Amino acid sequence: MHFGIALFPTIGPRVKTAQQYYDESLGLADLADELGLDHVKTVEHYFFDYGGYSPDPVTFLAAAAGRTRRVRLGTSAVIPAFTHPVKLAGKLAMLDNISHGRLDVAFGRAFLPDEFEAFGIPLDESRARFREGLAACKRLWTEEGTVFEGEFHRFGPVTLQPRPAQRPHPPVYVTSARSPESCVEAGRAGHNLQIVPGVLATEDLKDRLATYRRAWAEGGHTPGAEKVHFSYPCVIAEDGAEARRLAALDDERNGAAIGEAVQSWSRVNSADYPGYDKLADTAARATYEDKRAQNKVLSGTPEEVTRQLETIAEWFGPDIGISLGIHSGHLPAEVARRTMHLLAEKIAPKF
Amino acid sequence: MHFGIALFPTIGPRVKTAQQYYDESLGLADLADELGLDHVKTVEHYFFDYGGYSPDPVTFLAAAAGRTRRVRLGTSAVIPAFTHPVKLAGKLAMLDNISHGRLDVAFGRAFLPDEFEAFGIPLDESRARFREGLAACKRLWTEEGTVFEGEFHRFGPVTLQPRPAQRPHPPVYVTSARSPESCVEAGRAGHNLQIVPGVLATEDLKDRLATYRRAWAEGGHTPGAEKVHFSYPCVIAEDGAEARRLAALDDERNGAAIGEAVQSWSRVNSADYPGYDKLADTAARATYEDKRAQNKVLSGTPEEVTRQLETIAEWFGPDIGISLGIHSGHLPAEVARRTMHLLAEKIAPKF
Repeated sequence: MHFGIALFPTIGPRVKTAQQYYDESLGLADLADELGLDHVKTVEHYFFDYGGYSPDPVTFLAAAAGRTRRVRLGTSAVIPAFTHPVKLAGKLAMLDNISHGRLDVAFGRAFLPDEFEAFGIPLDESRARFREGLAACKRLWTEEGTVFEGEFHRFGPVTLQPRPAQRPHPPVYVTSARSPESCVEAGRAGHNLQIVPGVLATEDLKDRLATYRRAWAEGGHTPGAEKVHFSYPCVIAEDGAEARRLAALDDERNGAAIGEAVQSWSRVNSADYPGYDKLADTAARATYEDKRAQNKVLSGTPEEVTRQLETIAEWFGPDIGISLGIHSGHLPAEVARRTMHLLAEKIAPKF
Repeated sequence: MHFGIALFPTIGPRVKTAQQYYDESLGLADLADELGLDHVKTVEHYFFDYGGYSPDPVTFLAAAAGRTRRVRLGTSAVIPAFTHPVKLAGKLAMLDNISHGRLDVAFGRAFLPDEFEAFGIPLDESRARFREGLAACKRLWTEEGTVFEGEFHRFGPVTLQPRPAQRPHPPVYVTSARSPESCVEAGRAGHNLQIVPGVLATEDLKDRLATYRRAWAEGGHTPGAEKVHFSYPCVIAEDGAEARRLAALDDERNGAAIGEAVQSWSRVNSADYPGYDKLADTAARATYEDKRAQNKVLSGTPEEVTRQLETIAEWFGPDIGISLGIHSGHLPAEVARRTMHLLAEKIAPKF
């Protein structure tokens, strides 16, 4: 099991300026580098408190790349639907070189109707655009004289500059494949997986993962070579009650932010997003104590969180990556730093 | 007169890897910060040796922002035609915050037919897309609930996050307005100007600048508050003959790169780009000695370059910014570092 951090702001200027949030987050990236953690990730979202401070993950990760030396840098997702593939492949290749080959690229479909509306992209095209954008990036990274004839983009022959530093290209992840079909598709293609466990029941997650790993092997990829990352909100402190209190507060604020962002699902429907019209209800329903009991959030003393992680390893396997959501912006950065220190010093050595 | 550097790679992997070029360039950005230079800029281009190592200037500038403290960071241009305005405004606002308000944003139209073809954008739309993209960014940076009804993009009401650190927004420059009409438009709008002197005769440049400054004042903007930056390739050394030899070599290689990139103008024509079908000829025609005699390139001892700059100040005014093209990638980074040291220590104090 290896550990990193996932930065997902859920604040706006009433809580904290963007400048302060980035200062704190770059400090946490530095700390991840110093502590020998595996990765730092961040998201792509717009307009709302829910991720809106991170409309371009590559920009933040490039700032981190310029000042760190060994920690890997990952997109929690980039959204191909919102950026032309020539631009997307180009800037990711720049980041891979600037970081000396430390980039992991997760691609996502996005799911907030307001984001699609602003970009003038129909929700029902999101799966096709995700597939096409991902395929175009891989071809641009690896081919000379790419001729691309897609449904949404046609270009070529062109040869992308720069080439990625990692050959043939940076590791590719698919973010949050919720359906069995998406898991089969990702496995067959040899794509790694990033999972947000909060959105599915544990038994369903185990099923999806088994489906994915089966498809990975069927696709001719070496069993065990697939990389699977799980994201969990996390607060660790020597005083377990304090950690749980802070984690519950953070969870409440995150819930409010996602509740606001998914409001528009109440007026939108898409056959490509089954069940999303109920998202606002679902987000409001689960209590923090429920989530903690189900190991959907991690909090407590180092010993308590170690036990949670041992259960997670039993469920999903010992070789997974864990991305800790330690800084939504609602709690002081010092709380995140403490979590990272305790993780690196008292928990990671046991796994 | 204030001085900065403009990074414009004109190399491909046969000359130097992208990783090495970025390492060297980030080192030069660090040095610019240490020496107290005014700015570091870089370009947006694709596919060719001519700028192709920089498909996304924001990515490089973010890496520089994460490790410098006072130098300003500028886009030699971003091209609104190639990025959705929500994405462009968002990532520029991130960079402005990450750098604590050190961003200067120059917008450009672009001029290479192959770039437009790859993005599926007609050349004849470039002016309209430039105008619309620039206007959309300014509105997204400054308004709440922006409703944008453009020719190419419609969205809203949306409120961009994050807001730029500089209020109301980062300084806006227009890159390389060649026509008198573009100069009038930029001046009236209160936009600053970035000029590449190589593309026009000095008398024409003086005319354009006078036109721009007149339009600036007529637009109700404080005379003298406009910022105008000129870009010059530059090699300075205590041994003047060595500086000129290196500058001539660099000029020859840059000329070859631009010659390759503009080849497609021989098969393309656009009423919006008068004379561009002759670009390949023009690029090949001027000799290095001609350009140096006309002060289109700067090279020699600190004393010789000081005299060139004195002439430039007489032509265009004492308060202009000078962006030195010191690292195309063809010469060792050490040559660029020497140029910067001599500039900061022996030339800048005289202006």
